[in-house]
Amino acid sequence: MTEPDRVTGDSDGGGAEPSWGPSEVPTTALLTDQYELTMVRAALQAGTASRRCVFELYPRRLPPGRRYGVVAGVGRALRALGHFRFDDEACRFLLDQQVVDEPTAEWLAGFRFGGTITGYPEGELYFPGSPLLVVEATFAEAVVLETLLLSIYNHDSAIASAASRMILAAEGRPCIEMGSRRTQELAAVAAARAAYVAGFDATSNLEAGRRYGVPTTGTAAHAFTLLHDTERDAFAAQVAAMGVDTTLLVDTYDVENAVRTGVELTGGRLGSVRLDSGDLPLLARQVRAQLDGLGATRTKIIVTSDLDEQNIAALSAAPVDAYGVGTALVTGSGAPTCGFVYKMVARSGSDDPSGPLQPVAKRSANKVSIGGRKYAARRLLANGVAEAEVISIDRPSDDPRDRPLLVDLVRDGEIVGREPLTAARERHRRVRSELPQEALKMSRGEPVIETLVVHPDGVSESTSYRRGV
Amino acid sequence: MTEPDRVTGDSDGGGAEPSWGPSEVPTTALLTDQYELTMVRAALQAGTASRRCVFELYPRRLPPGRRYGVVAGVGRALRALGHFRFDDEACRFLLDQQVVDEPTAEWLAGFRFGGTITGYPEGELYFPGSPLLVVEATFAEAVVLETLLLSIYNHDSAIASAASRMILAAEGRPCIEMGSRRTQELAAVAAARAAYVAGFDATSNLEAGRRYGVPTTGTAAHAFTLLHDTERDAFAAQVAAMGVDTTLLVDTYDVENAVRTGVELTGGRLGSVRLDSGDLPLLARQVRAQLDGLGATRTKIIVTSDLDEQNIAALSAAPVDAYGVGTALVTGSGAPTCGFVYKMVARSGSDDPSGPLQPVAKRSANKVSIGGRKYAARRLLANGVAEAEVISIDRPSDDPRDRPLLVDLVRDGEIVGREPLTAARERHRRVRSELPQEALKMSRGEPVIETLVVHPDGVSESTSYRRGV
Repeated sequence: MTEPDRVTGDSDGGGAEPSWGPSEVPTTALLTDQYELTMVRAALQAGTASRRCVFELYPRRLPPGRRYGVVAGVGRALRALGHFRFDDEACRFLLDQQVVDEPTAEWLAGFRFGGTITGYPEGELYFPGSPLLVVEATFAEAVVLETLLLSIYNHDSAIASAASRMILAAEGRPCIEMGSRRTQELAAVAAARAAYVAGFDATSNLEAGRRYGVPTTGTAAHAFTLLHDTERDAFAAQVAAMGVDTTLLVDTYDVENAVRTGVELTGGRLGSVRLDSGDLPLLARQVRAQLDGLGATRTKIIVTSDLDEQNIAALSAAPVDAYGVGTALVTGSGAPTCGFVYKMVARSGSDDPSGPLQPVAKRSANKVSIGGRKYAARRLLANGVAEAEVISIDRPSDDPRDRPLLVDLVRDGEIVGREPLTAARERHRRVRSELPQEALKMSRGEPVIETLVVHPDGVSESTSYRRGV
Repeated sequence: MTEPDRVTGDSDGGGAEPSWGPSEVPTTALLTDQYELTMVRAALQAGTASRRCVFELYPRRLPPGRRYGVVAGVGRALRALGHFRFDDEACRFLLDQQVVDEPTAEWLAGFRFGGTITGYPEGELYFPGSPLLVVEATFAEAVVLETLLLSIYNHDSAIASAASRMILAAEGRPCIEMGSRRTQELAAVAAARAAYVAGFDATSNLEAGRRYGVPTTGTAAHAFTLLHDTERDAFAAQVAAMGVDTTLLVDTYDVENAVRTGVELTGGRLGSVRLDSGDLPLLARQVRAQLDGLGATRTKIIVTSDLDEQNIAALSAAPVDAYGVGTALVTGSGAPTCGFVYKMVARSGSDDPSGPLQPVAKRSANKVSIGGRKYAARRLLANGVAEAEVISIDRPSDDPRDRPLLVDLVRDGEIVGREPLTAARERHRRVRSELPQEALKMSRGEPVIETLVVHPDGVSESTSYRRGV
């Protein structure tokens, strides 16, 4: 953890990620659904806006067939929280549009989050019901964060969850994120970051390199070959500029010819060839044999054509050295959003800040929530293998088998949860290794560990989230 | 069309959309894949960077089962192009990371797009092979735009394409976009804009209101009811602040009780009730009957629970007045990206700017492209119904049945294609009405009109894109 940083301060310094550059938005306050502000307006008028509340951000279930999920976006959310300010322009807009009245605009103009947030650290795993964020603040302070927190967590965790499965499928071979072109231009930057948390080695996205320090990579497209009069001209130009260690894209015309040309031009010291089309397992074997036959035994093979975790797994026996993954990664490989929700689970019955919190829960059909403030822990067997996600209501588990999962992210308005992105990446590697073997399966399945809900009276049940409520 | 605006100018004024506010990124140049810059580097060194080229952005096919696609993101792309500048910080980063060398950094620092772009106007329909953008510029100028253009078009068009089907399914009932929480926080803003182009009436996203002028809406969540000691207290507070015309969320506890309370508190003049859970067709009928029985015959019913185009169609016989759509919309309803590609299709054989362009195409397995500069038109029957997408190579169709589809977007570096967002929305409504009746079907199907490729020799073929190449 790095130096604390006040939400209420103007400076964003002290974070361990590269500083908030000019490409970030200076205020995040309008990345919000209108109803949050109309609720603040009505609550201010009714005198209930300052009631102390607990809101939680959690998944009701995993995406169909998934065995675990990965928490990502924590660092981005803390950064966005630090920039959640209703500036003059935002307030004018809201008044002009009659979204808020004058007293509400005044409240918004002075808004600084002063509450406390605990949550799962970035890179952790999650299961149905995991309380990823527990926000304790006044109603108005907590409710205005709903959309921004959900947007960041739902997107980034969807990408990280897909990425983690790809990393497992790759069995130690490097994976490169290259999906920027298949998702919104700023979602692409967040996706590259989330993939890195989950174990990807690099990204093609330059802004992710500048903003978050994710290693970047990339050499050439088919257009570069087409630009030149011959493929040999193109390869020679690339090698002249980038050195023999570059990666040549060899499938613009005839792969065999291209490989031969690349090896010739580099005296057999060519860094890599990239295959972006065709029957990849077959082609990789042919190219490997050709490279070896030409003496280019150290030249690597990178494959990049519409890969997902299934295709990666299918290439495990092929002589492939690295995977480049695009569309499937940035679209969450079938689960582009996590479906996290943000719900009030407890509140004080009055404006007395020392008054007791009471559990609350809606009773809508199919969308029941469990009232009461949650704590979370991962229960481990003696051999270190994860056995259950323990969600206890009102107080943390004191079972010695349980590793607590909630860490302090914001304390009385002070951001305390920042950490280097590499810490999240390392954490993910570590906690994923605790999962039972079934987690490695690429097939569809149930959550790999059960969720155990422990009620305040000590009674526990393991079925609530299994039923999909 | 509004006042022209030079890409090479510093000002972004003159656009008809609200001005580039502080929440946009000041430079878009690093929203780019690294390989574009390494290609520029190698081409500069080889002396081929200034060869005149034509790149095209197009779909190889529609998402599986879709009958048509909708072009969106044009206005955003033009705006992003106007901010595509390699500033000092970007150049320093690229040099530090050894992505580029000094001569390339100098070229980037001075980069101003000076080429010409034609394309489909925003809101138009597209079919397999439609040349959505035709970019004519030097190689270096055209290649650096690849990722940014693809990111914007792939995302925004995916949302608009899903949204358009929902609008058809809604059969004239208003649709409200409320999916911000289920997608990345800035993708959410773009999604709200794209949905508006396709016919959505409003969004919950405030930044889309501020930045693009999309109408915004929203009233209250379940948390607002849970905050108060009784549902009646909550409703009374909301009505006091927002007026009787507000929308009450009536499914926190018991719908029947909630509806009765809402009608009582507003003297029967309640604006709307919102249903967010349960068996919506059944519930809508029950609530309509109850409202009518209580004399609240003008109170509307809004439904909002995980709707997609299929659910909307299934509610067509139910007494529903408006639909709120979230997750399915912002994730493209099963097709979160369009799979557009950006390929070089022609280039000059030399640096002579007046030299003839030669068609080029790669021959990679399964990814064949058609060389030569494209023109596009929609062929209409005498009754005004669309019959085919005519893509002609090298010269536009002169068939009197054909309505040309390409408009000038950028002319010699000058942005000329800006227009108000409402123009795109109106265009979409108009061109969608030209489609054959089969376009209205929500079932999976083939593209509703065929794509006809007309070669320079006049020979036409309708199968190229049907085969999925």
